[in-house]
Amino acid sequence: MTSPASPTSEPSELPLDVLVSQTLGEDLTGKLTELLPVLVQDLADIDRRMRDVLGATFPRLTDAATYACSAGGKRVRPVLMAALHRALGATDTTPIHSLAAAFQLIHTATLVHDDVIDHAEMRRGRPSLPQAFGLPLAIVSGDYLFVRAFELASEYPRSIIMRCGEACADLVEGEVLQESGRFDLTAGPEHYYRVVERKTAAIVAASLASVAEIAGASTAVLDAASAYGRALGVAFQIRDDVLDVYGDSDILGKPLYGDFREGNPTLLSLETYERLDGARRAEFERLFGQRRKQPGDLLRLRALVDAAGAAGRVEETARQWAERATRALEIVPPSPYKILLEHMAWGAAERRF
Amino acid sequence: MTSPASPTSEPSELPLDVLVSQTLGEDLTGKLTELLPVLVQDLADIDRRMRDVLGATFPRLTDAATYACSAGGKRVRPVLMAALHRALGATDTTPIHSLAAAFQLIHTATLVHDDVIDHAEMRRGRPSLPQAFGLPLAIVSGDYLFVRAFELASEYPRSIIMRCGEACADLVEGEVLQESGRFDLTAGPEHYYRVVERKTAAIVAASLASVAEIAGASTAVLDAASAYGRALGVAFQIRDDVLDVYGDSDILGKPLYGDFREGNPTLLSLETYERLDGARRAEFERLFGQRRKQPGDLLRLRALVDAAGAAGRVEETARQWAERATRALEIVPPSPYKILLEHMAWGAAERRF
Repeated sequence: MTSPASPTSEPSELPLDVLVSQTLGEDLTGKLTELLPVLVQDLADIDRRMRDVLGATFPRLTDAATYACSAGGKRVRPVLMAALHRALGATDTTPIHSLAAAFQLIHTATLVHDDVIDHAEMRRGRPSLPQAFGLPLAIVSGDYLFVRAFELASEYPRSIIMRCGEACADLVEGEVLQESGRFDLTAGPEHYYRVVERKTAAIVAASLASVAEIAGASTAVLDAASAYGRALGVAFQIRDDVLDVYGDSDILGKPLYGDFREGNPTLLSLETYERLDGARRAEFERLFGQRRKQPGDLLRLRALVDAAGAAGRVEETARQWAERATRALEIVPPSPYKILLEHMAWGAAERRF
Repeated sequence: MTSPASPTSEPSELPLDVLVSQTLGEDLTGKLTELLPVLVQDLADIDRRMRDVLGATFPRLTDAATYACSAGGKRVRPVLMAALHRALGATDTTPIHSLAAAFQLIHTATLVHDDVIDHAEMRRGRPSLPQAFGLPLAIVSGDYLFVRAFELASEYPRSIIMRCGEACADLVEGEVLQESGRFDLTAGPEHYYRVVERKTAAIVAASLASVAEIAGASTAVLDAASAYGRALGVAFQIRDDVLDVYGDSDILGKPLYGDFREGNPTLLSLETYERLDGARRAEFERLFGQRRKQPGDLLRLRALVDAAGAAGRVEETARQWAERATRALEIVPPSPYKILLEHMAWGAAERRF
């Protein structure tokens, strides 16, 4: 049995206004200052709704669930949901609070189970849940978050519950696909996109399509919301892969090179593999395929990614997905919230954390 | 990473009529022969409903989910649900099929995650899911089964979805409570019952209360169904604990002494601890508390349980819970299905597998 090492102190959390500013980026918060307090209030309401359902009769489970949910994170999903709701004409986002809380719980549940599967020690600058509470509690806490999410979703019509369920099924499939392709660079970008669309993009698409449905939007707008969410999700993930190699681990709150360690064939590694040839290509493939990598192996992999000059091309691809996301929004009438949604797509592709 | 060892052949499954006969016991199938084909058909319909939702686009996930769900098992829950529905006057159990399938999926999901947590190698006579498909796939397959269960539950009114969700939350709490008390005999029977009521009984109670609600029964009958399910669940679990020491591992499909190994303080171990004194009590406590036990330790623990003569008292307790279950049914009008439900309570307390 894993011996759980309890965290010694509550994690420090950023105030929501700082968090939202960071998520939106300084550039954007300057331009859209008047939206900030509105979104901060929306986010606070969604957070409260989420915390309201975490209470178990057994305190250690409540603690673990709260720990998982209070890790901060960028809150991209709930901000997107609130912003879209307002862009579609809502002046009060109360009707989507439970749904946004549900999606946030589902997202958190999958991070918890991911951390179990990936043996991740850190998450957002502090010990991961399995590290802090032990493996058994991490597994069942993930289940608990799923259950609470579905309870929240049960407030909505069946069409929304089912969309939520299908997105979760996609998520699980994405995880399985990812497992099947670990340590293998030969499956290529098709495999990568199959994983990302399921693991990252599907749930963003489903959450935004559901917001459109709740807002009473047309099918065309609902499809646009879904397409926007999907493309933004892909941009976000590609950027995530780049940050895992070129980011600042202090800002990210976790060590770099996690994808090398776990053998996840990211677009960056695939592009590198494509560009290298001869001995260096063989070396990259061999090192990438090793189940246990030494620190020196990780640095050598990084050096080969540098040498291949793959980052520029991959960053360009992320921007293309952001572009695709903003184009999907064309059908939405102009408003400051629409501008914000467009900026968030670019932010997903260009963020530093 | 765990290297998944694929199962080489599909598990053999018992035909449903044999399975139902075994679950009901020979004695009972003799008396209530005319009910058998009806229940076998109900069970076949519920099984089909469950299998219908297992398909993922990625075959390996479908395979894992199907493997988990085709392990046979006694199908006590769906038989109870169908029998109660008929005892309350239904002539067609179609309205409960999706719900019974959902509860069966939830039950299976928790067994899968239990097997991850308990490092169980065998389940029902074949490799456990983590053993057969690897740890990562076992974790996400459990999630997948939960998701599919909630999709099925979304057909029902919110009151039923919420009861289903609360039972799942209880289940998770039971698991956490159990974790917190491992290798410790001092928490006593109160702790044991807190675990069992949440981990085993709550979901049976919730499934039967939901059947009563779907049947349009009064609140009194709904409460009776819940009380019956809860008491039967406790009887079932106590019997499970006894079989883990005194059962036939060939019939059970798993090795004996799992609770000793995992340090689960069952009623049998608690009763033994209570009855022993002096050196033998200290020895029992010390051996029970060991994180890693040798085969000789397990046999010595068994010998001390024998010496304490604890089994008779514990079996009597199981029968008292069965008695409590049958008393809860008094409000239900007489019928062959009511007789069957009473027998199933006794069967839970006295079964050999």
